[in-house]
Amino acid sequence: MTAPHARRLVAGMVGGGLGADIGRTHRHAMQLDDLFELQAGVFGRNPQASAEFAAKLGVPEDRVYSDFREMAEREAARPDAVDVVVVATPNDSHFEIARAFLEAGISVVCEKPLTQDSETAAELVRIAGERNAVLAVPHCYSAYAMVRHAARMARDGKLGTILFVDVEHASGWAATPLELSGHKQAKWRTNPDIAGFPSVVGDLGTHAYHLLRYITGLEAVRLSGRLQTLVPGRRVFDHSTVELELTGNVPARLWAGMAATGHNHGLRIRVYGSEGSFEWQHEDPHHLKVQDLAGATTVLTHGLSTLSDDATRLTRVGLGHPEGFLEAFANFYRDLAEVLRARRDGTPVPERDLSFPTGVDGLIGVQFVEAVAASHDNDSAWTVPGSATALTQSASLSQ
Amino acid sequence: MTAPHARRLVAGMVGGGLGADIGRTHRHAMQLDDLFELQAGVFGRNPQASAEFAAKLGVPEDRVYSDFREMAEREAARPDAVDVVVVATPNDSHFEIARAFLEAGISVVCEKPLTQDSETAAELVRIAGERNAVLAVPHCYSAYAMVRHAARMARDGKLGTILFVDVEHASGWAATPLELSGHKQAKWRTNPDIAGFPSVVGDLGTHAYHLLRYITGLEAVRLSGRLQTLVPGRRVFDHSTVELELTGNVPARLWAGMAATGHNHGLRIRVYGSEGSFEWQHEDPHHLKVQDLAGATTVLTHGLSTLSDDATRLTRVGLGHPEGFLEAFANFYRDLAEVLRARRDGTPVPERDLSFPTGVDGLIGVQFVEAVAASHDNDSAWTVPGSATALTQSASLSQ
Amino acid sequence: MTAPHARRLVAGMVGGGLGADIGRTHRHAMQLDDLFELQAGVFGRNPQASAEFAAKLGVPEDRVYSDFREMAEREAARPDAVDVVVVATPNDSHFEIARAFLEAGISVVCEKPLTQDSETAAELVRIAGERNAVLAVPHCYSAYAMVRHAARMARDGKLGTILFVDVEHASGWAATPLELSGHKQAKWRTNPDIAGFPSVVGDLGTHAYHLLRYITGLEAVRLSGRLQTLVPGRRVFDHSTVELELTGNVPARLWAGMAATGHNHGLRIRVYGSEGSFEWQHEDPHHLKVQDLAGATTVLTHGLSTLSDDATRLTRVGLGHPEGFLEAFANFYRDLAEVLRARRDGTPVPERDLSFPTGVDGLIGVQFVEAVAASHDNDSAWTVPGSATALTQSASLSQ
Amino acid sequence: MTAPHARRLVAGMVGGGLGADIGRTHRHAMQLDDLFELQAGVFGRNPQASAEFAAKLGVPEDRVYSDFREMAEREAARPDAVDVVVVATPNDSHFEIARAFLEAGISVVCEKPLTQDSETAAELVRIAGERNAVLAVPHCYSAYAMVRHAARMARDGKLGTILFVDVEHASGWAATPLELSGHKQAKWRTNPDIAGFPSVVGDLGTHAYHLLRYITGLEAVRLSGRLQTLVPGRRVFDHSTVELELTGNVPARLWAGMAATGHNHGLRIRVYGSEGSFEWQHEDPHHLKVQDLAGATTVLTHGLSTLSDDATRLTRVGLGHPEGFLEAFANFYRDLAEVLRARRDGTPVPERDLSFPTGVDGLIGVQFVEAVAASHDNDSAWTVPGSATALTQSASLSQ
Repeated sequence: MTAPHARRLVAGMVGGGLGADIGRTHRHAMQLDDLFELQAGVFGRNPQASAEFAAKLGVPEDRVYSDFREMAEREAARPDAVDVVVVATPNDSHFEIARAFLEAGISVVCEKPLTQDSETAAELVRIAGERNAVLAVPHCYSAYAMVRHAARMARDGKLGTILFVDVEHASGWAATPLELSGHKQAKWRTNPDIAGFPSVVGDLGTHAYHLLRYITGLEAVRLSGRLQTLVPGRRVFDHSTVELELTGNVPARLWAGMAATGHNHGLRIRVYGSEGSFEWQHEDPHHLKVQDLAGATTVLTHGLSTLSDDATRLTRVGLGHPEGFLEAFANFYRDLAEVLRARRDGTPVPERDLSFPTGVDGLIGVQFVEAVAASHDNDSAWTVPGSATALTQSASLSQ
Repeated sequence: MTAPHARRLVAGMVGGGLGADIGRTHRHAMQLDDLFELQAGVFGRNPQASAEFAAKLGVPEDRVYSDFREMAEREAARPDAVDVVVVATPNDSHFEIARAFLEAGISVVCEKPLTQDSETAAELVRIAGERNAVLAVPHCYSAYAMVRHAARMARDGKLGTILFVDVEHASGWAATPLELSGHKQAKWRTNPDIAGFPSVVGDLGTHAYHLLRYITGLEAVRLSGRLQTLVPGRRVFDHSTVELELTGNVPARLWAGMAATGHNHGLRIRVYGSEGSFEWQHEDPHHLKVQDLAGATTVLTHGLSTLSDDATRLTRVGLGHPEGFLEAFANFYRDLAEVLRARRDGTPVPERDLSFPTGVDGLIGVQFVEAVAASHDNDSAWTVPGSATALTQSASLSQ
Repeated sequence: MTAPHARRLVAGMVGGGLGADIGRTHRHAMQLDDLFELQAGVFGRNPQASAEFAAKLGVPEDRVYSDFREMAEREAARPDAVDVVVVATPNDSHFEIARAFLEAGISVVCEKPLTQDSETAAELVRIAGERNAVLAVPHCYSAYAMVRHAARMARDGKLGTILFVDVEHASGWAATPLELSGHKQAKWRTNPDIAGFPSVVGDLGTHAYHLLRYITGLEAVRLSGRLQTLVPGRRVFDHSTVELELTGNVPARLWAGMAATGHNHGLRIRVYGSEGSFEWQHEDPHHLKVQDLAGATTVLTHGLSTLSDDATRLTRVGLGHPEGFLEAFANFYRDLAEVLRARRDGTPVPERDLSFPTGVDGLIGVQFVEAVAASHDNDSAWTVPGSATALTQSASLSQ
Repeated sequence: MTAPHARRLVAGMVGGGLGADIGRTHRHAMQLDDLFELQAGVFGRNPQASAEFAAKLGVPEDRVYSDFREMAEREAARPDAVDVVVVATPNDSHFEIARAFLEAGISVVCEKPLTQDSETAAELVRIAGERNAVLAVPHCYSAYAMVRHAARMARDGKLGTILFVDVEHASGWAATPLELSGHKQAKWRTNPDIAGFPSVVGDLGTHAYHLLRYITGLEAVRLSGRLQTLVPGRRVFDHSTVELELTGNVPARLWAGMAATGHNHGLRIRVYGSEGSFEWQHEDPHHLKVQDLAGATTVLTHGLSTLSDDATRLTRVGLGHPEGFLEAFANFYRDLAEVLRARRDGTPVPERDLSFPTGVDGLIGVQFVEAVAASHDNDSAWTVPGSATALTQSASLSQ
């Protein structure tokens, strides 16, 4: 059941102002379980607009700041400083904003891709470790109850040895040159200065790649990537296919696309093992299809009494009552809240091997983007991604 | 987008204490769009437990009451009285609790079935009208965006003339004698004193029947019902099938079951017209399957840019990002909030033909239960349900 | 595997000439396993056209007859008489044609509804018994491998006690007034003189009803029926819903429709038991969805090594290679061939509780149509269908 | 409708004896439309067993031969020689057998992969051209009505410009080391001497690749391949993923697997264009899912009156009546029969751009296998497959 909130955590936000989908999604997600209250922020570059928007959100006037630096400085100085700040700005500003808060010892939720290169991403991870702040990256799809159940099955060997993984995040949202018609998100996501040339890999590929890692527990040893621009005139790559070799010589494939005509969302993963296989897709997130060696398919549903505790603890409503994207996002915040509250209250952090993604995951995502781009530039030659895993995950979680 | 909350509406609750799923669901739903704050209540019969639970919810101590009568009296006397009270107790107490608040001029959200007989249900509708209070019944399934789109299509004649309707709410939750093992909800739902003998019709049949009415705009002219107990030893009927004749001689069928072995939830509706047909089911709520005369099926998804405004205005996240049960429930509260705020602020109530179900709908539901039972007692003879529609819906909505 | 044909059975046909879908389907089905050769027939009322068509089919000239009476007489007189005659004419001629062959001691496959009233249907069953001829009715849907598996599961108690059955054969083929545009089949199926007023029950309802009986092994004790004409101006009923009480007080529902707008074919059955439930639908015939008490769904596929022998023996190709309608129809003929060959060769007839439908099944179908019509005429009062089951099935199968 | 057979074509077979699935499938397929009669053959290496099997099939004793050479010689000498011979032996004998008949001027249907290397495959194509014989390769999946409709849509530009193709033929049939337990097909398919090291590419990959080419009309310009052995101890590769660059710089992916645990059959293709996309999968072959730019999905069904003539002419039964694998295979033979009969009777061959695959397609398939193996050996470097398309397809079809 919903944890009673005792004293809610205090959150701040940078970006996510009027009309920004992602900011609204974060707020819904924080609100759903009533674990956070939004009490500070910078909601855009225009101070007047930011203040008006903040007022509507119920953010006290004196905690609406003119820029993130001021916010970091003044919040850090308050005895009742925010417990966490959400960075929901376009990609090119992630690094500076996140760094400012982490350096001030304030925990950060930063959208993916964490930064624009692995050096800066690694720096964020390092600072978070040094300043004992949490750095979390909202790969929220890994917070669906059925993804957690899948991950538990894979980790517990229910599929036997993993043999092959196929993952794709291929959406049709930008199958037309939306950016020419003034679509705000399309504009910056197709601007190489903001989103990078391999934009689609940073935006969608990192989600797919994280999902693969989260469910299987495997890492990429090397990869071969291809980038393509399917929509004529587009300034960034909008299509990418990657072949991977995972730990233990396990082959895998990844497809990231923003011009997959007709797809609504298009995140899907299939994992094949020596004893069985399963498939999960985001457009039907409350089911997991499991196949056995003989070829029978069993459909497991969110809420079944027979699921693992990893799924059950993230289930709010009864069997057959779907939960959706906002609940998954709220699950991310619920797991984060456990850690933030333990830190705030000086109580032990619950130990979970299946929890929220951290800065290390964010860094690995950036290294993945870089490796795909490097391989592409080298005619798809096999390329070894940076070895972020050398940095222990505990770096950002230890107290 | 989420309506900015300006000043949130103040809600109270009776019932829905520790461990009660339905109370928690109402709270999640009120919270999701941040339109309500829960500030008063009676959370169970044990005052100590009620107070402790209230504290966890952040309800001020002085607005936790020992019983609903005290609450109605004292809240009505406050200048900052609650805007609405949610009645989330077992069926047999709905009437007295709802009446107390309505008589005090306080708006009420009352779970279905509204009361245990149509006389008392009609009395609630009458009182609500007299005291100018809103009486709303959370048939929340009608608040799914795709149900709204379906209703719009049907109302706008996109199916041509409606020819046949088939609806079912057949769950497997009580396919075993759960009540013998101490399952709390099963216990009262199989107790004829609390749930009535046609328990399954009151609990699930009323949802199905409301969905049929909501989508098609048609009412039952007469019906023929059958009640059955499928689980041996059960004290109430757990299975019912009903044949209906709707306005304009349109045939329809309804199946309500709580022992439909293997079903997870099992709410589904199919509507056939002279030009096309569609199907919606709750276990895949973000899709609507539309079939044309030639036999091609088109699957519409929540979030498509081509949907009606009735669906679009209830869409929080992007295409392909599922919303679920809590969002639908929150949609109910969002529509209710529009009316309550207009009343509070003295602004005009937005006119909508597709909004939340009112006390009249609740009354019609009770009349439906009675008619099914009467028909069953008369060897399934055709029976005319009470004519609640004579009461105008505006009775409970007018200011 | 395909039984080697040794000596093929010799078949004749009445009706099914040029352009008749059903005749072609029978020929494909007989041909698929190479168990029959078509060697005699009357392919329409025009002798010239019949002869030309016969020539194309490779039927010897001297076995093309001018009418069915001549055919019955002359074939019966041949030492190499046909082993079986297929009656594929419109409904109103079934009785006289089938009677002629049965009286001549020739086995008959007769399309449903067997005849236009139960008296004549019973007479056919009686004659078949007296003359020791096989009378088979091609309710071919019961010959799908997965239907056989379902029937085996139900018979073997894999669902526990059967609690409820829901079956429908609701097609959209006549959702428009096709008969006005000269559509041949539509013309006679909407002519009450040929198809009877409850045309849709005879045409589609009998298939659905047979499927229910075949899978569950239960019979109707009483029923309550409704008939309706959904397409304005149509001369017969094109929509019917029936409530049934089966053996052992098991409730059931049946929907037969030829104006179910948008449906392609629309035969589907769901069976609920105390331990599980399953669903089969004709538009996805090589799967069977089985649900357990907890709510998990397992999808079984035609060809799985774990299926019952009843399914496996009717499987021609490998797992994942779909078989369709013609294969199901060929399965009917394969089962029939077993019996016909045993009779021809004087070898024992294999004992099978799941084999092809006989004249008794055809008679029960006609009684069903009559009971639905009688109930409808009596304002849907509960009506007891004729008790055909008193006639033992062995009547038509015994040697 | 079924073409009347006038005089059936005479077929012979090499291989496909007792217990051989593929031989039985060919016979079913030839039989279904009654266009061929099997009148000659070599059904295995044991003359006694071959003769007995032939007798069961109704093949005249004097046309059962001791080996394929004798058969080719003696059949060629007969005035009533076979019109076509089906080669249904393991891969390593295809070349010699096919060559013998082609050199004798007899048309051949040869299973894929056509031969074990492109040199021999090209030789077969050359001989067929010289001797004016038809050489056909039964990539039967391209003969499904809905695949034909898909190909027509793609060819007619209904998807706009093709942007990306994803195809897979990934079955779970050999997910365990079946070959160790004496499974006959598994034994030779995992024997590198018979099936070649890239066995899975030859067996399943060639089907997938042909489907891609057939539907899109595009050819591979270069490819990058990976081969893997997923089942420990297996002597051949059982898993392969290939990245392709098609004509016009269109990216594509292909996955061929025989150890895709849990998959029943697993042939599926998705094609994305600038105006829409579609998906077809073999386990649901009578539907085609088409998606538009907005994101709506329309499901087209085999038998819809609105389909292209390419689909309609291959439709035997009514809307909603599924056809399966045997019907698709029979479609291959129906198209082949058109050509063979025209040649036999000296009438014009109907012109069709969507017909059966020829020897050139078989050669392209072999070149594909070779290119994947070569790329794999070169650490997945981009590799140009042999340019078979220089040989005109008409080579084997012209009279």
